Amino acid sequence: MKEVQYFINGQPDDRVSVAERALQYGDGLFETIRVRGAEPEYIARHMQRLNSGCEQLQFPPLDWALVREEWLELAAQGQDAVLKYILSRGAGGRGYRPASDTQVTRIASLHPLPHWPADPQQHGVRTRICSTRLAAQPLLAGIKHLNRLEQVLARAEWQDDAIAEGLMLDDRQRLVEGTMSNVFIVDGRELLTPALSACGVAGVMRSVILDLAATLGLPVRVAPVTLDDVRTAREMFVCNSLAGIWPVVSVESVREFSIGRLTRQLQVALEAGEDDDRGNWYRT
Amino acid sequence: MKEVQYFINGQPDDRVSVAERALQYGDGLFETIRVRGAEPEYIARHMQRLNSGCEQLQFPPLDWALVREEWLELAAQGQDAVLKYILSRGAGGRGYRPASDTQVTRIASLHPLPHWPADPQQHGVRTRICSTRLAAQPLLAGIKHLNRLEQVLARAEWQDDAIAEGLMLDDRQRLVEGTMSNVFIVDGRELLTPALSACGVAGVMRSVILDLAATLGLPVRVAPVTLDDVRTAREMFVCNSLAGIWPVVSVESVREFSIGRLTRQLQVALEAGEDDDRGNWYRT
Repeated sequence: MKEVQYFINGQPDDRVSVAERALQYGDGLFETIRVRGAEPEYIARHMQRLNSGCEQLQFPPLDWALVREEWLELAAQGQDAVLKYILSRGAGGRGYRPASDTQVTRIASLHPLPHWPADPQQHGVRTRICSTRLAAQPLLAGIKHLNRLEQVLARAEWQDDAIAEGLMLDDRQRLVEGTMSNVFIVDGRELLTPALSACGVAGVMRSVILDLAATLGLPVRVAPVTLDDVRTAREMFVCNSLAGIWPVVSVESVREFSIGRLTRQLQVALEAGEDDDRGNWYRT
Repeated sequence: MKEVQYFINGQPDDRVSVAERALQYGDGLFETIRVRGAEPEYIARHMQRLNSGCEQLQFPPLDWALVREEWLELAAQGQDAVLKYILSRGAGGRGYRPASDTQVTRIASLHPLPHWPADPQQHGVRTRICSTRLAAQPLLAGIKHLNRLEQVLARAEWQDDAIAEGLMLDDRQRLVEGTMSNVFIVDGRELLTPALSACGVAGVMRSVILDLAATLGLPVRVAPVTLDDVRTAREMFVCNSLAGIWPVVSVESVREFSIGRLTRQLQVALEAGEDDDRGNWYRT
């Protein structure tokens, strides 16, 4: 597949009403799902995260069986692809106040896989620290909502294609995530990833890796992470649903890394599909 | 006029591409302009604020003469109406990264004036303190961008129509603004309004009032405002471009107010059009 295909509420269409609250206020959520072998990957985890978002934003009830069906149907159209799925709270309402009778609008699109040169999974990626800080907003933390100006500003900070990802700190200078990824470091023999209680997106691949680590018997800690932790870490990697695990070989002006043993171990385990949800469907 | 009219890039149309960055990321800005006597009110101030937003978000250059022309043309279609004007960074780009060659999409709509029962300008409004806090993000403070989930969550907190506005605090419990308005209190003989350096929208009506106060020789202070300031204040009001000045007669569980002399004086001055920009056009 070369072109992007769009579907609104299940029907082929690439335009939506201007009154959609996703457009008016960023009042919506999204998932970015890897399609592999014509099937959506980690479907249960994506559904769970989307459902958390719906609860946090107090969305009206959604037909989750229908959502699952749409994901499966769309994935069947692309052997290896990206399925992006947006939920908008619907059209209208009086100003910011959501209407009591809105219907959620489902906006799906199927995209070709992004082209990443230089095999980042194998050779690792260079990163930088963004100057855009993430604001602390516990009410929106963890979920993948559509208010993404912080990420847009952060990603606009650099043009150098040799830098694959920008790392974002919170207002207390703690490392939270990448602009499009979550972050892990290996500290001693322990896997450490930032807590996301005040900001950041709790990525599906992050949750897969946390579970994989447990399966492999690796000690894991979810806690605040500082740049000092990065300076003394043995390994570092970023991850997301499309990229899998990218070893970090450089954090500009902070330090360089060699690709470490644990990172490779997790890549192998991930590739082997040791997470048991990969092929599973959402069970209602 | 009874129905809403929509225009995309100057043409009658009520649908936009799903790829618009306003929908994908809330990557855009908006203005809500009062049309009075078929003319947009405070056009220069709205343009200035929109321009600040474009600069803060590093939008590509915009034809401001064209924007002005659209506002005038649209306003001419409605005697008394609301002109909402959204700028989206355009369609596409690679993920969060804005494309270098995007064209800004202009989304205009003309609405009937909102119906506010019980003459709030005359009789004042009841308000409440929202539990949703505004996060501190200096990079987005002041501008009227499309990442409005905090306002959506705050406005969803109450259903009682007798409460006209919710007041929002920051994470240090300081009063910042209403969900759709700015806030002033009268402290002694001084007019006090919250500083908006970390969060909040710098409203056009707020700037009009600040200038009016200067013209009237009223001492004004822009500074952090606490609930203790509210408790000891003599008067309080909220304002926006559509509502003008609404005296606050109650902040639920905090205190009641009488409508004060300074509030009335500012309402009269505003009504008299003593701000010299009301009819002025943007001068390029």
